[in-house]
Amino acid sequence: MRHLIISLFISTFLSASSFAQHTLTQSLMPMPSSIVTGNGKLAINQQFTFALTGYHEPWLDRARQRFLSQFFRRTGIPLHPDSKDPAKATLLVNVEHGSSTVQSLEDDESYKLEITTEHAAINAPSPLGALHGLQTFLQSIEVGPDGFYVPTASINDHPRFPWRGLLIDVARHFIPLDVMKRNLDGMEAVKMNVLHWHLSDNEGFRVESKRLPKLHEMGSEGLFYTQAEIKDFLEYAHDRGIRVVPEFDIPGHSRSWVVGYPEIASGPGPYHVERTDDSQDPILDPTQEKTYKFLDTFVAEMAHLFPDAYFHIGGDEGDGKQWDANAKIQEYMRAHNIKNNADLQSYFNSRLQKIVEKHGKIMVGWDEVLHPELPKSVVVQSWRGQKSLAAAAKDGYRGILSYGYYLDLMWTAARHYAIDPMSDDAANLTEEEKKRILGGEACMWAEFITPENIDSRIWPRAGVVAERLWSPQNVTDVNFMYSRMNDLSRKLEYLGLTHVSNYSASLKRMSGTDQVVELGVLGEVVEPVKDYTRMDTAPALVNASTPLNRMVDAAEPESEKAREFSLLVDEYVKGGSSDLRSASQIRSQLEQWKSLDPKLEPTLEKSYLMKELRPIAQNLSALAAVGLQALDYLQNGSLPPEGWASNQAGLIKNSQKANADLLLMVVSPIEKLVAATANQQGSTR
Amino acid sequence: MRHLIISLFISTFLSASSFAQHTLTQSLMPMPSSIVTGNGKLAINQQFTFALTGYHEPWLDRARQRFLSQFFRRTGIPLHPDSKDPAKATLLVNVEHGSSTVQSLEDDESYKLEITTEHAAINAPSPLGALHGLQTFLQSIEVGPDGFYVPTASINDHPRFPWRGLLIDVARHFIPLDVMKRNLDGMEAVKMNVLHWHLSDNEGFRVESKRLPKLHEMGSEGLFYTQAEIKDFLEYAHDRGIRVVPEFDIPGHSRSWVVGYPEIASGPGPYHVERTDDSQDPILDPTQEKTYKFLDTFVAEMAHLFPDAYFHIGGDEGDGKQWDANAKIQEYMRAHNIKNNADLQSYFNSRLQKIVEKHGKIMVGWDEVLHPELPKSVVVQSWRGQKSLAAAAKDGYRGILSYGYYLDLMWTAARHYAIDPMSDDAANLTEEEKKRILGGEACMWAEFITPENIDSRIWPRAGVVAERLWSPQNVTDVNFMYSRMNDLSRKLEYLGLTHVSNYSASLKRMSGTDQVVELGVLGEVVEPVKDYTRMDTAPALVNASTPLNRMVDAAEPESEKAREFSLLVDEYVKGGSSDLRSASQIRSQLEQWKSLDPKLEPTLEKSYLMKELRPIAQNLSALAAVGLQALDYLQNGSLPPEGWASNQAGLIKNSQKANADLLLMVVSPIEKLVAATANQQGSTR
Repeated sequence: MRHLIISLFISTFLSASSFAQHTLTQSLMPMPSSIVTGNGKLAINQQFTFALTGYHEPWLDRARQRFLSQFFRRTGIPLHPDSKDPAKATLLVNVEHGSSTVQSLEDDESYKLEITTEHAAINAPSPLGALHGLQTFLQSIEVGPDGFYVPTASINDHPRFPWRGLLIDVARHFIPLDVMKRNLDGMEAVKMNVLHWHLSDNEGFRVESKRLPKLHEMGSEGLFYTQAEIKDFLEYAHDRGIRVVPEFDIPGHSRSWVVGYPEIASGPGPYHVERTDDSQDPILDPTQEKTYKFLDTFVAEMAHLFPDAYFHIGGDEGDGKQWDANAKIQEYMRAHNIKNNADLQSYFNSRLQKIVEKHGKIMVGWDEVLHPELPKSVVVQSWRGQKSLAAAAKDGYRGILSYGYYLDLMWTAARHYAIDPMSDDAANLTEEEKKRILGGEACMWAEFITPENIDSRIWPRAGVVAERLWSPQNVTDVNFMYSRMNDLSRKLEYLGLTHVSNYSASLKRMSGTDQVVELGVLGEVVEPVKDYTRMDTAPALVNASTPLNRMVDAAEPESEKAREFSLLVDEYVKGGSSDLRSASQIRSQLEQWKSLDPKLEPTLEKSYLMKELRPIAQNLSALAAVGLQALDYLQNGSLPPEGWASNQAGLIKNSQKANADLLLMVVSPIEKLVAATANQQGSTR
Repeated sequence: MRHLIISLFISTFLSASSFAQHTLTQSLMPMPSSIVTGNGKLAINQQFTFALTGYHEPWLDRARQRFLSQFFRRTGIPLHPDSKDPAKATLLVNVEHGSSTVQSLEDDESYKLEITTEHAAINAPSPLGALHGLQTFLQSIEVGPDGFYVPTASINDHPRFPWRGLLIDVARHFIPLDVMKRNLDGMEAVKMNVLHWHLSDNEGFRVESKRLPKLHEMGSEGLFYTQAEIKDFLEYAHDRGIRVVPEFDIPGHSRSWVVGYPEIASGPGPYHVERTDDSQDPILDPTQEKTYKFLDTFVAEMAHLFPDAYFHIGGDEGDGKQWDANAKIQEYMRAHNIKNNADLQSYFNSRLQKIVEKHGKIMVGWDEVLHPELPKSVVVQSWRGQKSLAAAAKDGYRGILSYGYYLDLMWTAARHYAIDPMSDDAANLTEEEKKRILGGEACMWAEFITPENIDSRIWPRAGVVAERLWSPQNVTDVNFMYSRMNDLSRKLEYLGLTHVSNYSASLKRMSGTDQVVELGVLGEVVEPVKDYTRMDTAPALVNASTPLNRMVDAAEPESEKAREFSLLVDEYVKGGSSDLRSASQIRSQLEQWKSLDPKLEPTLEKSYLMKELRPIAQNLSALAAVGLQALDYLQNGSLPPEGWASNQAGLIKNSQKANADLLLMVVSPIEKLVAATANQQGSTR
């Protein structure tokens, strides 16, 4: 049995060149825990049939319908909706036993998938494994000279961590349920199993409350989900093997709560959720009983609405200013010997935890909730790093990692991919402590997110976080990851995700035309500024009224074009002037960029949304011209005139600066070409 | 007051060159009946507000929500969902009176739209007019150097015909309701007001019947709409000012009916709806009372489900073979003095009409239903031409035209645009007779349609049929139409229609990669074969099991690239060798095509779906090389060698032939270049 080690060897070998033919490992993300690839093919055609055997539950029929529909999108081959003789089925799915009433961390998600030249079989202990196996099968479908096919293989797969989540913030910008649903489809495709739904924050309260109706009535500007809609959505998630953990962030981040219920705030109010002001940063009053009575009513209702065993109360970034300013609260703290705001919040959390527990749920909170007084049942979500995660595990708390997985920071996929929940301090934990690390969550915070661009901020990058949490720890080859991520990205489009198509739609809107080829070339080599730069440097308050219709909102978080160009330059600089193929590709690319600005600039003036791109277009064309000069020197084997390279430093430095909240991503490889002109062996002036 | 004549003058002037700046007329399809354009702009920004005044109905609130959502998609500017002070609203919509309970042909659809630099106002007698006015306003939004804006104008608009329909056949291929809904959004955008829903045919019966459940249970392969879904869909249509006329096609085209109810067929059965055979062509038995009892039950149920006053019973292409072969029917015909099958069908229609009328509906049928015995209330839908429409009108029947509007025939937009319901014989009708011509319907028959490509077959071409039926008869400038249709096409994308995005998704599936630039260039210059050629030349039976995943299923019905190239060549050939700009554009285009085949051919071998494109790629590159030679002769002012032009005839003729069910659309302009080499003035050998 050649196992994963084989495919990793293949990967390293293949990722350096273009792929002549697909083997199964190249098609999969996340990589299975064990795979033996074969040389044969299972033909996929109109005669394809599907059958379910073993333990039967109605949602497996829906999984089958979904499979047929996704199969159709992937191949264009319509399958007969009625099932045929199971014994002769092309794909036979067998499930051994039923699923738990409420999906849990203990559920068995494993499956086996055998693909021969004659047929394929998925065997899974539980329906969850069957869902995962079906997604693996769908990812495996490729097209070849004789038709669609799946390469033969034998897969034995199970997840590394039981908690593989995606947080979606629907408070900063409301995300309609159809958009949420297609993202659940994406999660299913990469075997993520937890949607962490950030349902309330200062900017909005997004759930209908029948018991406390002023929450959604006054705290949402009319943008909320009804309970009927939520029930439908939860069923949609459950069908895809996805738990939904609701988060209601308190005691801070709670402005939307106290618009309707100012009596539970620590300051006098009145509060408003309008978008014109964020100077108010209210925090709930932990010193009065009516706050807890309110929360008891609230948690009772929401614990009933959301069946999952876990209930997230936020608990992060509590700003204690209102506590400091409230004499009654200060008095209470003195009377009860509460030394500081951290202790006051801990007191609040302890009271809240008892309410959450009373209603049958396990409390989850961000890093800051950690306090010796909290019971060990509480689950800690770390946004601070593996260190705090490890510390919690040492103290007996279970935890999930989100540090390093914040998709809104616009990091590269490689940077997210490199973060492992078990690295750093966590690597030194005992086996028992390690078991307390349940997994992690990619986080889509929504300050700069709309229903239009959310898919492009989540996908395909969330796929590499999904792989980090599902696949063996030693699956780390970065080039192979990119190859598979790009493949995944194309396949995710068939689910209706708009992470690719939104780009050209946005360019058309910016320009008011459908002639956007040149604009598209520019947008392909920029990336939005990283971390919190955009928020920190914004000239005005960013809120839900801010139009997010600029290039920075359309451009992909990571420029694949720049990454490929950079690899090409590295290869050329390493290989030297003898590498004619790389040189030719670099030249052709640089020539396109050099000629871009003259073509683009007249059109940029036509729209207020394009004008800000002028300096970037100018820098790109100027840099490309410099790159071409450098390439000439390198190909001729001649040194440039004295001072030529240093003369380019100004342009290079200038081009590294952000413009229009965008970074030009090809500066560094062109800088490398310039630097290489000085390092030539055996050159003559 | 400068009225439409002005805009037509502008149009003719502008359509010959590229448009430097948008005037309102350039943004609109269908063209309003009267428009006076101004020079100012109404700025569209975050301060935009919307208000409704006058008569209020709940669906106007939904129209407002829809407007805000479409406004957001068009601009990226999120508007506050709560309304502001009406007096200060940027866009004020005033409705004078309420709408009729059931939308009817008599409803007033007119509206006035005034746009000044300060604000805009829509005034409409009824909510229907307000809907149309909102769509005109949305179409008018453009982007400029200072932001989004709407050009100032004064519009006074009403439709030419009250029946402006789109037929969608959901029997040959089932179309899910989400796809149907986005097409209703498209219809609303171009002010079409009738969905003719072809709900049954040999291949499937698509509506749940509670009274006769074997219709959908046995006649649909599980692909049908429940009555609850239909009610929701009808409300969706009504919200958009769209009537839904159901068609249940009988007595022919009825195989799906008699699978469950063979007793009403004229042959013995059994029947099946499976996709492997279409040799059965059953027809209902008009000679037995139980057939009418069955239809009475059926019409009673469906007349209740569909509120529209009109009920379409098909009645086309009845194949009388089963009647000829049935001794009992022959006996009945002799006994009742029914001379032939046409008379028998007429007898059936008379009986059916009474049933339809009994249940409160007006019967609509295709051409063939016309028979002196039918009451004048029956509406005739003509697929045969204006002649039969005019004949019906002369006889006192009302009619709608579909001849010339069959979208499945893959005609050019210009060809559809040229068909006018009032032309030919209809032009000579009296005024009273002309009033009987209610309008027309574009028809989307679904033999080669899937949920994936249906949008691209309907849009944007249905927009020109919509214009023909809405706008004044003298709006006929073809180049101006294309300019506005292309603009419409881009705007329709914001409604979620996939007529553009499906193309690249299909290419990616064909190739199994996302590197489809070259394949896209090829696909842009081909068109699917016309009329019924594809069905007539198909090697095997085409049915719902046939994969529709080839280039012919992805390529647009009309090649805009070829149309533009052809215009360019015409301009150059007319202008002669002095037209350097056209020559340069032609050369650059030909060079791209010439170099295409060498790049593309190695990749075509990799997928069974691309292999069939080889001859087209070869022809294109060879033709482009010939075109370049011709251009050289023309630019040099030299005559080609004796016989050169005639030597190209073989290639040209060969390239005109269909390959892979596709036509290469640039043969004719290249042929013109070749021909022009022989016609040079003052050339010397």
